[in-house]
Amino acid sequence: MGNRVQAASSRRRLSRAPATTKRIIALAIRLNFLDSGFERDFAAFLTTKREVSEDVNAVVRAIIDDVRARGDAALADYSARFDGVDFSVTPMAVSAAEIDAAIDAVEPEVLGALKVAATRIEAHHRRQLPKDDLYEDKMGVGLGSRWTAIDAVGLYVPGGTASYPSSVLMNALPAKVAGVPRIVMVVPTRGGAINPAVLAAARLAGVEEIYRIGGAQAVASLAYGTETIAPVAKIMGPGNAYVAAAKRQVFGTVGIDMIAGPSEVLVIADRDNDPDWIAADLLAQAEHDAGAQAILITDDAAFGASVEQAVERQLKTLPRSETATASWRDFGAVILVPDLDKAVPLANRIAAEHLELAMADPDSMVPKIRNAGAIFIGRHTPEVIGDYVGGSNHVLPTARSARFSSGLGVLDYMKRTSILRLGPEQLRILGPAAIALAKSEGLEAHARSVAIRLNFGEEG
Amino acid sequence: MGNRVQAASSRRRLSRAPATTKRIIALAIRLNFLDSGFERDFAAFLTTKREVSEDVNAVVRAIIDDVRARGDAALADYSARFDGVDFSVTPMAVSAAEIDAAIDAVEPEVLGALKVAATRIEAHHRRQLPKDDLYEDKMGVGLGSRWTAIDAVGLYVPGGTASYPSSVLMNALPAKVAGVPRIVMVVPTRGGAINPAVLAAARLAGVEEIYRIGGAQAVASLAYGTETIAPVAKIMGPGNAYVAAAKRQVFGTVGIDMIAGPSEVLVIADRDNDPDWIAADLLAQAEHDAGAQAILITDDAAFGASVEQAVERQLKTLPRSETATASWRDFGAVILVPDLDKAVPLANRIAAEHLELAMADPDSMVPKIRNAGAIFIGRHTPEVIGDYVGGSNHVLPTARSARFSSGLGVLDYMKRTSILRLGPEQLRILGPAAIALAKSEGLEAHARSVAIRLNFGEEG
Repeated sequence: MGNRVQAASSRRRLSRAPATTKRIIALAIRLNFLDSGFERDFAAFLTTKREVSEDVNAVVRAIIDDVRARGDAALADYSARFDGVDFSVTPMAVSAAEIDAAIDAVEPEVLGALKVAATRIEAHHRRQLPKDDLYEDKMGVGLGSRWTAIDAVGLYVPGGTASYPSSVLMNALPAKVAGVPRIVMVVPTRGGAINPAVLAAARLAGVEEIYRIGGAQAVASLAYGTETIAPVAKIMGPGNAYVAAAKRQVFGTVGIDMIAGPSEVLVIADRDNDPDWIAADLLAQAEHDAGAQAILITDDAAFGASVEQAVERQLKTLPRSETATASWRDFGAVILVPDLDKAVPLANRIAAEHLELAMADPDSMVPKIRNAGAIFIGRHTPEVIGDYVGGSNHVLPTARSARFSSGLGVLDYMKRTSILRLGPEQLRILGPAAIALAKSEGLEAHARSVAIRLNFGEEG
Repeated sequence: MGNRVQAASSRRRLSRAPATTKRIIALAIRLNFLDSGFERDFAAFLTTKREVSEDVNAVVRAIIDDVRARGDAALADYSARFDGVDFSVTPMAVSAAEIDAAIDAVEPEVLGALKVAATRIEAHHRRQLPKDDLYEDKMGVGLGSRWTAIDAVGLYVPGGTASYPSSVLMNALPAKVAGVPRIVMVVPTRGGAINPAVLAAARLAGVEEIYRIGGAQAVASLAYGTETIAPVAKIMGPGNAYVAAAKRQVFGTVGIDMIAGPSEVLVIADRDNDPDWIAADLLAQAEHDAGAQAILITDDAAFGASVEQAVERQLKTLPRSETATASWRDFGAVILVPDLDKAVPLANRIAAEHLELAMADPDSMVPKIRNAGAIFIGRHTPEVIGDYVGGSNHVLPTARSARFSSGLGVLDYMKRTSILRLGPEQLRILGPAAIALAKSEGLEAHARSVAIRLNFGEEG
């Protein structure tokens, strides 16, 4: 790992354009498919780590143990210490009146936009509801797959600037569609105050049980319960290093969703795009996090250069310029290919969370893409639409995990139970094969449990 | 945790029937719903830990690093040391000729049984294949969920006595049905020899790429690749503590399946069962592992006692008596309820991997069961049928995780990509809501990436 990272940095120094002018804020990595070292450089680029994981396991373990031992009292202590909130003054549970007041406090335009988003997200996710499949085969064996909602889920909502109402909708609405009877939201506060838009989003998503707690202590209380908070069966939602470590530690006792990494976008674009549009899309990813990644693949070197210049220009006027600059400088990339077909295998190896196809005839490329969290087709589908109002979920697999996992959906809030039903006749037909396999595996009690029902003279 | 375990042990001492005779081999825990302390005792019973997790993380980390650094050479060294196999004599890759020979070596009865199982498992899992859902909403926005198979998966098959051909079928056939183009199997050997039935099962499941390697080194080679073995995207299958730790450590680089715990069965039975049948079912679980768990819930105390006596009798003649005795003694339980309806909430809290309903009218209970890996309906459906030839998967959630997860299926070998497509008109309608939300979340570059396409006078 160490070696690879070093290789990537030295390559990066080599492959950057010379910084001849002071005006240049940040230069992305440049790769050219036709260069002799491309495969080596691209492979190194793929394995570049974009986050440093802090080891907070011991601290988190202590907090979890304390919450298990002292329950509400521990929650009160940690919330006083970390969030500056006194539960004897501001209750831990958020009241319905508070949510009502929050809705009044949200700007009408934003509330309206949240409603548009909620309606579309709910409609799209309804189509993901699985159907039970109960049937009898030719032999008369009853078989089936039956889906049920998880009894109770916890939704972690980060505090501060990362407290996104859109994420509340994206995490809670699939649970509501799945039919989860109890959805519990936890959100850390600064002195007890919660972003009104977050509470409005919770109300729109049908979440009424909300506690102003956060960190590892909130995760522990959801997993093990306290006097006030009944435990849940699965914990969802993003959080900082403490929250991620706590989720990993309680996994097994409860289910957890994926641990999301920094966001990323891959834009495949031909020369007929407005460079400013593509630059804006790249920066929409880059502004999320210094570890975010924005990649452009194009078949036109001049267009690539125009996009780089547009990024430079736009960075100067961006409120989150510092973050976006760091992301573009450290992880941004412009990859030149001789033709866009060559972009397909690269895209499948990158397996981006978000993939934009901004080209003539994007539809012909879609079936060739095997690995992507979400695909945004055509010049008028910026990824940002998917973040908010497209209807699909914005919680998507990062860090190449789209090779083996999916975005958040209704199935993440449900589980499947298999059903099997034999009568005496079916057991008579299938039993001998089960006995033969059990015996060949050395599991005599397995064999007996079938044989004893067939009067095969096995000892009872 | 310490306290709870202690409470459970002292309770266990109290609630056991007095061991008045030397003939008694093992007594399970007895709980009675009508006892005043039932809720407390049942809650403690639920949290009893059944496995000690060995901390092998450091050793595993070193092995993984070594395989990443030295590739095939490291695999050869570890396999010589741990498995006593010399790859210069017995090649690491299993040849097609070897698989042919293995099939000839398997008893015809067992081979026939494997074919019955494979046919039924494949047919059942075909029904799990998800359908793509691509559609246009009323506004003309294109949306969709598209499923694709994972490019390559690795299947770990344990060596020694736990090398079950049935598990090869259960893990590999859903991958084949999903359309996974490359399935790689690894299996540790003693001196290079592989159970012929395992190779036969691999052939039946369409697995042709097989390596005789195991342990953390096999997991590392699947995750990172070596000169001989190309890396996969997801690693499935059970293994010992080293394998489990290795899977946890490579998670992220590749996907992994759940880490399975010891097996368990819950049988809900009325008095009209043959006690010997039910005892045989309980022991079929107990013989798996000293940490396995077999639980009977009945509404008839005399029937419960008869089953206990039958367990005693059958234990005496069981080849794996030592394992089954330890399991029944340490984790077995007989729970008496006043009527079988009272068993339902208990079953939902236990969330058993396997649930047998051996009673009159079992169908009326099925819809009330929310949490179970698999349900076996009626007196002629012993759980063992599901282990081998029922058609459903025998890889199921253990240790109460059926509250939030499902058994292995075709979806575990696929991933879903969201699709979004807007034209200029749809962007004009939906764009303003996205801009409002982006601005309210303080993400100006997000807002810009939409506004710039709408000529909203945002800076480009």
